[in-house]
Amino acid sequence: MNTQKVLINGERLKNTLEEYADNGRTENNGVTRLCFSEEDIQARNLFRSHCEELGMTVKIDDMGNIYATLPGKDNSKPPVVMGSHLDSVKKGGRFDGVLGVLAGLEVVRTIVENNIEPEVPVMVVNITNEEGARFEPSMMSSGVLSGRFDKAKMLQSTDAEGISFEQALKESGYEGEEANRIKEAKAFLELHIEQGPVLEREQIDIGIVEGVVGMVCYDIEVTGESDHAGTTPMPMRKDAFFAANNLIQEAREKLSKLDDDLVYTMGRINAWPNIHTVIPNKIVFSLEARHQNPETIKRVEEIIQELTQSEGKEKCEVKATKLWSRDTIWFDKDVVNTFEQSAEALGYSHKRMVSGAGHDAQFLQDFLPSAMIFAPSVNGKSHDEDELTHWDDCERAVNVVLQTALSLATE
Amino acid sequence: MNTQKVLINGERLKNTLEEYADNGRTENNGVTRLCFSEEDIQARNLFRSHCEELGMTVKIDDMGNIYATLPGKDNSKPPVVMGSHLDSVKKGGRFDGVLGVLAGLEVVRTIVENNIEPEVPVMVVNITNEEGARFEPSMMSSGVLSGRFDKAKMLQSTDAEGISFEQALKESGYEGEEANRIKEAKAFLELHIEQGPVLEREQIDIGIVEGVVGMVCYDIEVTGESDHAGTTPMPMRKDAFFAANNLIQEAREKLSKLDDDLVYTMGRINAWPNIHTVIPNKIVFSLEARHQNPETIKRVEEIIQELTQSEGKEKCEVKATKLWSRDTIWFDKDVVNTFEQSAEALGYSHKRMVSGAGHDAQFLQDFLPSAMIFAPSVNGKSHDEDELTHWDDCERAVNVVLQTALSLATE
Repeated sequence: MNTQKVLINGERLKNTLEEYADNGRTENNGVTRLCFSEEDIQARNLFRSHCEELGMTVKIDDMGNIYATLPGKDNSKPPVVMGSHLDSVKKGGRFDGVLGVLAGLEVVRTIVENNIEPEVPVMVVNITNEEGARFEPSMMSSGVLSGRFDKAKMLQSTDAEGISFEQALKESGYEGEEANRIKEAKAFLELHIEQGPVLEREQIDIGIVEGVVGMVCYDIEVTGESDHAGTTPMPMRKDAFFAANNLIQEAREKLSKLDDDLVYTMGRINAWPNIHTVIPNKIVFSLEARHQNPETIKRVEEIIQELTQSEGKEKCEVKATKLWSRDTIWFDKDVVNTFEQSAEALGYSHKRMVSGAGHDAQFLQDFLPSAMIFAPSVNGKSHDEDELTHWDDCERAVNVVLQTALSLATE
Repeated sequence: MNTQKVLINGERLKNTLEEYADNGRTENNGVTRLCFSEEDIQARNLFRSHCEELGMTVKIDDMGNIYATLPGKDNSKPPVVMGSHLDSVKKGGRFDGVLGVLAGLEVVRTIVENNIEPEVPVMVVNITNEEGARFEPSMMSSGVLSGRFDKAKMLQSTDAEGISFEQALKESGYEGEEANRIKEAKAFLELHIEQGPVLEREQIDIGIVEGVVGMVCYDIEVTGESDHAGTTPMPMRKDAFFAANNLIQEAREKLSKLDDDLVYTMGRINAWPNIHTVIPNKIVFSLEARHQNPETIKRVEEIIQELTQSEGKEKCEVKATKLWSRDTIWFDKDVVNTFEQSAEALGYSHKRMVSGAGHDAQFLQDFLPSAMIFAPSVNGKSHDEDELTHWDDCERAVNVVLQTALSLATE
């Protein structure tokens, strides 16, 4: 069987993506499908029935993760697994997450209609609550599967209305058995939109994702003294705003020299008392940085520590508090290579890259050989109703997943 | 009569200041006495009875301003007027405003107990709602008296509970006749605490205030683009935060070279969406500057305009919006000189200065020859429960008011 000739049905993929987007579609053609909302449950029901129509066996685990399995020739062997998440953020897009689940569905549809019988089982999964938009944290269920998160603690996570994840899980009808949790796989393949502008700007079809970058996030607090803006001569001030501005400048200068791949963001700033006629006595701003090399992240943390002693703080006090960090996760080299070979075989342009955003695959990689590919995001937009991945880009990406799944399932 | 030998009673002044502070005293020995609150009305009643005990005639005008007049030898002549305001901000201090009113009361008490008969009437006034803390704007009544503010509009000003100034005025029992408004004066003398640190730091007893500095206040809005902090390479960003940081630095550098007397403050900054994982698409910060020379203020405005075209804005858009401005007001030279001569005659150290904060005298100067003196503020604190002016500093300042009033009333 020359599996390289088999291609997915782009029109069917498009129609299916739009069908799922109907579950939570917003006025501006985005999607709001929060974990275990009515819309999420409808999308789950649709997914289950679509899988069952293909002769797949559907199982649910104790976190509500859905596993749909198409038998292979030897069902004692670990399956090739594809998937991502059906939940979205509030006013998110039509592609984030759902594209990876429906890629799996489309791959199985293609396998079935072409009467291909894989050597090993092929599984499609929907991972519960990747976004963490209703119940924090994000990547909750892959975190529990990997043992990084404590399930009991996760069950207590509550939404803005005070409803716990546990209650929502029970009421959803999607609480299954812990015994159904995935434990092994030939490979876990996650297709996701890039959520960044690189592929589109460089006109590349497929991002071959080697890993997810490590990051640190700090709060930097500058404390001065509040005085009257009109009556306090400049040399007598302890202006937290001006000191913070010096430190921000210093940090940017030093960070810009570290490495071209480093990204750093000061996304949040608050001032006290935040009145135009009063000199601020406190400024707090966040500094978040991401890079694949732990040495670079270490240097970022040194630079942050240097700020607390910098001359730029003038007469103010500076405190840096680490909010969190995570290490770089490298995906399975063989799976990465297979993804790359598939893209190459299909004649699509591709480049290796690291993900700046977090994904379920980074936790599943703890116990399943995992890797990801990215499809281009128009203007890099995501978590936004304007999120867009062109249909032909979706089609190409799912063909790469098909090709990779078939390669791995027939090895 | 050698009036230079007459001095006020410092102990009585202290006791009276503490007596008034009982009307609204806070846990931390500050004062909350919002305009037409129960506490303000109690202080007004106290003031009225204290004045009447001295044989003064009390009149109220249509803004609730209280005028207490001690007759002189020739009551056809304009009075020498002293005063300030009894209202305070929320959790303000025991000296701001009330010191200027009680200075007038203490001066009259001293005149009466020494059987001094002034040539012209001596008046003490309490100006309604200087702070604007309950009903905006500040200096409301002096603004109406001077014709700068429209009375009908002021009556509609409402507090946080939706009560209008008009209603509060009526219910206070302090609504009098428009005919009672002050129209002329030999001089208006306002003693106030400095609300800045200069006198205390330089160990000077009395600030001779020549005028109130002009000011401008702008909002500067920097608009970029929100993108994912993890997935957007640095060269592809339109980071409003970094652009704002450049512009703030540029403004500070240029402003610092203008003039040593210039004060400039960026008291307020807000970011959107203000999330650590998202590149800010908008930053708005305020820039407020004060200086006595209109040319310097003009240069400040040019610098602000230069920011909108600066390279520092990088790929962002910058808009500068003028929120308000006011011109420098110079006090009456003769009254200023008389204040200075009085301080000199009393052997107190003094320096000429301009006020960075606004005061009723700046509006009254429109139609009454006015001037101010400042008493030192410990650490420059005001609008704060920690506000403090030492008792001996209060005493010296009121002696300067006495000396000045007697000089002017016996010319």
